[in-house]
Amino acid sequence: MKIIIVGATGTMGTHLVKALESEHEVIKIASKNGDIDTDITSVESIKNMFKQIGSFDALISTAGPTFVGPWNKLDDNTFRKGIEGKMMGQINLVLIGQHYINPGGSFTLITGALTEEPQINFANASAANGAVEGFVRAAAIELDNAIRINAVSPTVIEDSPQYFPFFPGEIPTTMRQLEFMFRKSVFGKVTGHIIKP
Amino acid sequence: MKIIIVGATGTMGTHLVKALESEHEVIKIASKNGDIDTDITSVESIKNMFKQIGSFDALISTAGPTFVGPWNKLDDNTFRKGIEGKMMGQINLVLIGQHYINPGGSFTLITGALTEEPQINFANASAANGAVEGFVRAAAIELDNAIRINAVSPTVIEDSPQYFPFFPGEIPTTMRQLEFMFRKSVFGKVTGHIIKP
Repeated sequence: MKIIIVGATGTMGTHLVKALESEHEVIKIASKNGDIDTDITSVESIKNMFKQIGSFDALISTAGPTFVGPWNKLDDNTFRKGIEGKMMGQINLVLIGQHYINPGGSFTLITGALTEEPQINFANASAANGAVEGFVRAAAIELDNAIRINAVSPTVIEDSPQYFPFFPGEIPTTMRQLEFMFRKSVFGKVTGHIIKP
Repeated sequence: MKIIIVGATGTMGTHLVKALESEHEVIKIASKNGDIDTDITSVESIKNMFKQIGSFDALISTAGPTFVGPWNKLDDNTFRKGIEGKMMGQINLVLIGQHYINPGGSFTLITGALTEEPQINFANASAANGAVEGFVRAAAIELDNAIRINAVSPTVIEDSPQYFPFFPGEIPTTMRQLEFMFRKSVFGKVTGHIIKP
């Protein structure tokens, strides 16, 4: 299977590349030091990425920049970080990538527990996650050619302990759980699901 | 109670103004023909609105422009209609309005069943709704001074029968149900809730 991993150099992406590359053709996408450097906040950069890759079977995204910080810094301007990054960055990967993906292929986007379980400092991520999850359910009934789409929604990630203090009460998602959530989306048959640990 | 109704000239707003104006001071906001004409896609216009109103007790929003149309017309450009309208329009009403609202006041935003129950042509609304609902849950734990925030999430509206064919299987929300969902948010005590019929 030809699998694109967006955010391939991050904590989640690095694990997924390692887990999948022995059995699949993995194309690593990152803002830098990927196989193809791509800025997902730019429609042109995404189009250029797909033109270079051509057809593919699955796209996994772990890329989700959002504004993290105190509520009194949240305004129209800081809110745009999550809109252009985790929200439209990922949505544009689908809206553009649908013209390149093979029939029966799949998109798997990243959201997170913050959609339903907010934490202080993360309102921008809660909104971006909610947008992506709403989009995933809607796109699942719109996409042609048996193309599927799901979101993976972990809690705080085991390999990012620096975030634990900001997520009181969230049992960390292990790297194995995370990997298998993506496996369910890519190698299973569900569509329009929000896959949780 | 001094209540701002944004989208006061629409189907929902007209009903709510009529239901509330005999017992409360209602300020009608619309893009035109309101007490104060306001473009909710403009931060400056929202700021100007609150400056003119000063302090208030509750803000109700029924304003939710989104792109409605075939999936093949959905791209980064058309997606912006829901981002700037139903999503950031409403989120900015809160981020700016929090500096004017009285302690114990409430914000009530509009979302809709499309968040969880997609229909063909409405992916932009599903995403905008999801963003607003994620934001509402997050803002509820951030807002100071006992300020509350909820979303009202109706199905297709009884008084908009022209939309019924686009919402197969959705039992229309009656105007009375709609009114009472807003009453629960404004006059009750819950916060961070997505209120459904």
